[in-house]
Order: sequence, then structure tokens, then C-alpha cells
Amino acid sequence: MKVLSGIQPSGKLHIGNYFGMMQEMISRMESSELYVFIVDLHALTSVHDRDRLATGTLEAAADFLALGLDPDKCIFWVQSDVPEVCELTWVLSTLAPMGLIERCHSYKDKVAKGIMPSHGLFSYPVLMAADILLYQADRVPVGKDQKQHLEVARDLAQKFNNEFGETFTVPEPAISETTAIVPGLDGQKMSKSYGNTIPIFMEGKELKKRVMAIETDATPVEDPKDPANCNLFKLMKLFATPARMEEIHGLYVNGGAAYGYLKLELLELINDKFADARKKKAEFLADPAELRAILAKGGQKAREKAVVTLDLVRDRVGLKY
Amino acid sequence: MKVLSGIQPSGKLHIGNYFGMMQEMISRMESSELYVFIVDLHALTSVHDRDRLATGTLEAAADFLALGLDPDKCIFWVQSDVPEVCELTWVLSTLAPMGLIERCHSYKDKVAKGIMPSHGLFSYPVLMAADILLYQADRVPVGKDQKQHLEVARDLAQKFNNEFGETFTVPEPAISETTAIVPGLDGQKMSKSYGNTIPIFMEGKELKKRVMAIETDATPVEDPKDPANCNLFKLMKLFATPARMEEIHGLYVNGGAAYGYLKLELLELINDKFADARKKKAEFLADPAELRAILAKGGQKAREKAVVTLDLVRDRVGLKY
Repeated sequence: MKVLSGIQPSGKLHIGNYFGMMQEMISRMESSELYVFIVDLHALTSVHDRDRLATGTLEAAADFLALGLDPDKCIFWVQSDVPEVCELTWVLSTLAPMGLIERCHSYKDKVAKGIMPSHGLFSYPVLMAADILLYQADRVPVGKDQKQHLEVARDLAQKFNNEFGETFTVPEPAISETTAIVPGLDGQKMSKSYGNTIPIFMEGKELKKRVMAIETDATPVEDPKDPANCNLFKLMKLFATPARMEEIHGLYVNGGAAYGYLKLELLELINDKFADARKKKAEFLADPAELRAILAKGGQKAREKAVVTLDLVRDRVGLKY
Repeated sequence: MKVLSGIQPSGKLHIGNYFGMMQEMISRMESSELYVFIVDLHALTSVHDRDRLATGTLEAAADFLALGLDPDKCIFWVQSDVPEVCELTWVLSTLAPMGLIERCHSYKDKVAKGIMPSHGLFSYPVLMAADILLYQADRVPVGKDQKQHLEVARDLAQKFNNEFGETFTVPEPAISETTAIVPGLDGQKMSKSYGNTIPIFMEGKELKKRVMAIETDATPVEDPKDPANCNLFKLMKLFATPARMEEIHGLYVNGGAAYGYLKLELLELINDKFADARKKKAEFLADPAELRAILAKGGQKAREKAVVTLDLVRDRVGLKY
């Protein structure tokens, strides 16, 4: 089964990303034909800064590799290194009813958040459909916000197949069984845009400050507490062993859970969990030539797949004269 | 000076196309660096028929070459053979304010004429801007209907140059000095969509029927007539020698102009004018491999230019990591 997922080259990855999409992707390396790519073309809809984009791309690559993505066990590349995706975008564009794209909420939501209402932002779902269909992906893990875009990809695949003959796999959304909903410092969903994150590669005092800022209630140490409503408890659960979580659960329901100590314990668990990845990330970033070579090789592998689909598409629509 | 012009691969070329854009392009071969291309990607916004598009592309190529376009004196290619244009389309798309594209009349006009309102049709001006900017064209001969699209290309060139540094030539519309406004059989502008054309490569009885159908008034032969208001007179003028036009002018103002005879004379003039081109077109179509080889060579020449621009663009926006 082909599973495909894109990652943004902008912003620091946080533990919400990790326990959400990243960990799942990494775990799928063995069981699936895995496609993971850094969406620099999409990022152009919000980043108009050459260095920020180029650096963000390299850093996202280092992040993913450091966390355990093995480029020999998947196809890992930078979106723009396979220019065929832009050709397919145009072809799909001519098939996409204007109303289908106009109905996508994401454009309006992003504009409401202050992103410039560009033609590219509006066209985002068409490029995303091309991303998916070019590689004939079967499954695409999507969050709630991207579900409608996956519907667009499905619609366009079906429309193309109907008009021009069977060409595209119609992708299914992947409902993850392992993905956790990770609360942020304030208990809302952890998200860069809420400013409530714990970045994976943050260290030292900075990280400690974040962890100590996890919001908890004012129940005294000796009183019983409800673990189901505790933000800190949910975060601990992502890192601590089941045995330790049972102990902590006991402290919550029977009294004796000291938030401050638990936070320090969590801090240590985070540091332990990501110590290895942090070291590896520093190594990758110290050798950008090696990083680029890994991405170039991935780009080639992806392109080999892409040209097969695009060649068929060109033939089907009449671009081969 | 770089002059660029695109031609549609759909529909039979008519003498309005010839005395409009085509003759002018052919005449510019010596004085300009001339770029002429067949817009198969644009055509996808209205043609969803593989054979019609592929055949239309080859036929448009044969038409242009038969009429005298020398592929050694210009760059003549098929749009989709330079996929870089789709990459540039995406980059420009992320710079194009949504309002700029929404204000383009052409989309609404085409939808009103019954063309499917697709995302591609809406995005047409962005692809057209990429067509122009990719080759750093100085001059683009445009009809009234395309003037606003050229404005979009100019806006996007300026916007890109401002945000990312001087990259694109800002193209100017070319006001033609030689282009004639060619009336159709009914006196309106000759246009495929009005069904009032005289196709260049039509012959024999079919052509005769068209020419005899040129609308004229009912003034008797011996009465004076106003040449300035006569459709037939204007069409004659495109084909007859100045000396013969003076004679005909005399017949109009003094009486004696017989529409029927003049139509037969026009028919002969059209046949003479295009006899050679018709023979050549048949030769080209009889050897599609040769035709494809000419287009492939043109595509290579165009692509060599395109990659220079695109490489610069990729660097400027941060796609080179």
C-alpha cells in the first residue's frame, strides 16, 4: 500500500507533530510503500523569503531524518525537485470545476488568519491533488483541516478516470490508530498558531521554561485530582512507561501528585526521548552537502515514479501530438 | 527585440488570422528574435478530446510552416514541450493577488459563451503570464481581448522584481502597424465563433460557396456604390494589387461594379495567394514524423531559454535549498 504525506518546511516541529504525523510515518516505513515530501511549493503561498524557505527545507529534512526516517526505506524528497507535479497541477486545473475549489474552507480560513489572498493560496487544493495523484497514493493521512482537500483529490481522480480512462488511483484518507491528540501548554490542541507548543529540538532552560508553563489547576498536592482533565497527565502519558503511568494515576486519584515534580520528571523524559535525535540533527545540519545528497537521491526516486504517471496523463489528454 | 505570440491548436485558421497575427509574425522573422508557440496547455481549458487536441496541434504547426514561418529563423514550439512554464505558473500564482485574477473579464466572457467554468479557465491569465515572462519577451502582439491579460503579466513581472530583485523583463503590448481588421462574410469581425470565416486551407466548391456568401447590398450593377461600406470591397483589398484596387474603386464610385463577378475574381485571388501554402501543408501533413522533428527541435531551443529564467527564479524564491 502506498502511503503519502507532506510536511511543511516552515516553523519548528513540536511534540504535537511528532506524536501526530511524524511518528506514524516513521512507523509505516516497514509495512508500506512510504512517500514523504517537504512541500516547498505549497510554502510559497505564505513564505516570500528566500533564505527562510531554503533553510526551512533543509531543517525539516534534518528533523525528519534525525527522528528516524530512513531514506532507504521510503521515498523522501523535496516537492519542487519533481517539477512534473506542476504540469499535473495544470492538467487537473482544467478539469476542476471552479465551484469545487471555491467551496474549500481552508482558503477563507487562511485569509481570515492574515495570509495574503493569492491565486496560489486559492489553488492550493489543486496542487495538493497533483501531489497525491502523481504518485498514485492509496492512503493519505490527513488531519481534519485537510479532509476537504483530499475530497478534491478524489473528485479530480474520478473525473479524470471517467473522461479519459482509468489513470489514477482514487486515494483514501488514512484514519490513524496510533496518532495521539496532543494538548498544548494551555490544554488546547498543540499548534504553532496557538503559540502553545513544546518544540522537539528545544533544549536547556528554554525547554524547561516551556514545560514548567504547562497549565494545571490549583488543587493542593494531597488532594485527589482527575487525571482525565489534566493537561500535564496527558502529556506525561506520551513519554512515561505504562508502569510509571499507573503509579502516577494512583497519585492523581488518591492524592499526592505534585505538579511541579511531575513537570521536572516530564522534562527529563522529553530530554531522554529526543537526546539521540538532537545529536543526529546537529550532525545533519553540520553536513548540509550530505543532507542535500540524500534529498537529491530521494528526488530521483520520486521522479522516476512521477514520470510514469505524467507520461500516461500527457498521452490521455492529447499533449502527445 | 524579443517578440512572442501564441496560437491556438484548435479550429481551422481563416484569413482573419492570416492578415491579423500570422502575416505579422512571419514578417517579423527577420527583424526580431521571434517566439511562436502552439498553446496546447491553454487549449485544455476548452478541449477535452485527446485526438482533437493532438491533431489540432500538428495541424496548427503545418498551417504556420506552410504559410512561410521558417523554423530556422525563429523559435517555434509546442507549449507543453517546455514544462518549465508550469513551474513558473505556480510561482507566479503565489504572487498573484486573487483580486487581480478575479478582475479579468475574459473568464466571465468565456463562461457566458458556454465554456465550462473550470479552475484552469480562471487561471488562464497566470499561465499566460508565465508564457511571456519565461522567455523574457519584450513585445507581445495582443488583440483587444488579451490586453488585460498582458496587464496581468506586467503586474506580476513588476511584483516579482520588487519582491525578489530584477528578474523579469516587463513586456509591452505590440501595436501592429500592418495588421488589418478583416471583416467576415457578414461584415462583423471575422471570427470562428461568429461562423463567418473564410478558412485559408478551404478549397474548391466549399470555398466558392463561402466567397459567394459574402454579404453585399442590393444596389444595381450600374449604380454607384460606397466602397467604404462594402464588405466585399474590404476583402478584395487584402488580395488584389493596388492597381487593380484602383480600377475596382472606380467601378464602385462611378457604377459598373458587379458583385458576382468581383466575388469570382476574389475567389481566384484567394486560390492564387494560398495555392503554394496549400501544397506545402499537404506535404507537411503527409510526413508527420518530419513535422514532429521540427517541433522537437523548436522545443529544445525554447527550453534552453526557459531553463535560464527558471533557474534564476528558483534561486530567488528559495526553492534551491
